[in-house]
Amino acid sequence: MEFQKPRPLSANREKEIRSLLRKKERDRQGLFLAEGFHLLEEALRGRLHPVLEIYAVESALPRMETLARTFPPLRDLPVCLAAPSRLARISTEESAQGVVFLCRKTAVSPSVLEDGPGPVILYLEEMADPGNLGTILRTAAWFGVRPVLLGPRSTDLFNPKVLRASAGAVFHLEVLENTPPDAVREWASRTGRPVVAAVPEGGVPPKEAEKGGKCVLLLGNESRGLSRELLDLASRRVTIPRRGRGESLNVALSAAVLLYEFLR
Amino acid sequence: MEFQKPRPLSANREKEIRSLLRKKERDRQGLFLAEGFHLLEEALRGRLHPVLEIYAVESALPRMETLARTFPPLRDLPVCLAAPSRLARISTEESAQGVVFLCRKTAVSPSVLEDGPGPVILYLEEMADPGNLGTILRTAAWFGVRPVLLGPRSTDLFNPKVLRASAGAVFHLEVLENTPPDAVREWASRTGRPVVAAVPEGGVPPKEAEKGGKCVLLLGNESRGLSRELLDLASRRVTIPRRGRGESLNVALSAAVLLYEFLR
Repeated sequence: MEFQKPRPLSANREKEIRSLLRKKERDRQGLFLAEGFHLLEEALRGRLHPVLEIYAVESALPRMETLARTFPPLRDLPVCLAAPSRLARISTEESAQGVVFLCRKTAVSPSVLEDGPGPVILYLEEMADPGNLGTILRTAAWFGVRPVLLGPRSTDLFNPKVLRASAGAVFHLEVLENTPPDAVREWASRTGRPVVAAVPEGGVPPKEAEKGGKCVLLLGNESRGLSRELLDLASRRVTIPRRGRGESLNVALSAAVLLYEFLR
Repeated sequence: MEFQKPRPLSANREKEIRSLLRKKERDRQGLFLAEGFHLLEEALRGRLHPVLEIYAVESALPRMETLARTFPPLRDLPVCLAAPSRLARISTEESAQGVVFLCRKTAVSPSVLEDGPGPVILYLEEMADPGNLGTILRTAAWFGVRPVLLGPRSTDLFNPKVLRASAGAVFHLEVLENTPPDAVREWASRTGRPVVAAVPEGGVPPKEAEKGGKCVLLLGNESRGLSRELLDLASRRVTIPRRGRGESLNVALSAAVLLYEFLR
């Protein structure tokens, strides 16, 4: 079976698509762009946010063919052919590997919190750096965290750098965006789930922070840490002990260590 | 006490300095550049690689003055004033904060391996990504690892992105560059130190990998992992168990989890 006959990517369509590099347009249209074969594969595997259309340079078609052997639905997707210079205008990476694709955002339902949440739930307050957010999502997926709650004013989940750093986790990990602290308070109090705040100093060691095998772990902004409102929600504070030098561990590394310890 | 009267940064000097953005020139001259006030502070605090000269825009001088109150030797350093456009040509970051500085590389002596090495020693084989290398060094410093051994063909320790991601750890952490696997074999066998290889699958869980409180931890290249030669050196292999989804944990995150576990 063949791919649908690729159409050329028109200048008008390019302009429409390119607008999705801005968060405002992603929000308004409910669409986003992702790049590269690895993310395309994860998108086809994860299926949380459906792929709608693919933009590729001609030399990328053989690799698409190979991918379609593992993921036959890829053959049903419309493909637009673009010159490398045109593809570059809708991509943000130098090494987009000649493929960019359009996805529809699927809003994760808050019912994920009722429907078998994992033993550890993560709440991220105002993550500013896309690399950190993506890395934390990749780590959360690895450790089986479900769901991840993203506070208001965080960097956008569908920012291309977040998608890349997540290594595709965004395509299968359930993330509740724009979750206010109140929602955590209400849910934790109703379910009796302990709330643990990660703080750069003064908390108990990770081993002592999590006792019943279940918690909501709060991680704060890279520079300012957690807000007072969230700190007040927590019944325990946890700090990874420093043995050497340095001001702090990066928030993504802290997340990895804490998830490892809490889920051991 | 005043700073030395700043001289203007000449076009010739700019050219000489700019050459240090290339590894080859850093190697040949034994010098390197770093950027921003945070790294300058860490360089003055860490003192492993001495600061020789400072290039600053005029508007950065008040902040230099503040820093000099904590680090008086800063006043003895030559300062060259540069227009922002000239400073941009010797810097690699958009937010260099108007300050770039020149340092002399100090080669760490292999005697650090005899002179009270820490309980965990890290060997990094062919780290390719400067962000990963820098992040691992930052984490190693946090956990008090001493020394870190860097294998041949790794990304350059003095690459500006490594310095930045290390959050200044390069200025105080002892790193032995260009260390061949043979040196690890010889040292581990002579001192009886167990060698543990981090592998993406098939190893024992971290808790079982490190028993005597001391080891050499081997971490491999981001794509290819550890070479056969290094795998053969190891008496144990360790894998961080996956509980959810994803191909692998990023090497810097793995380093953080393993150092946390081995040094608990």
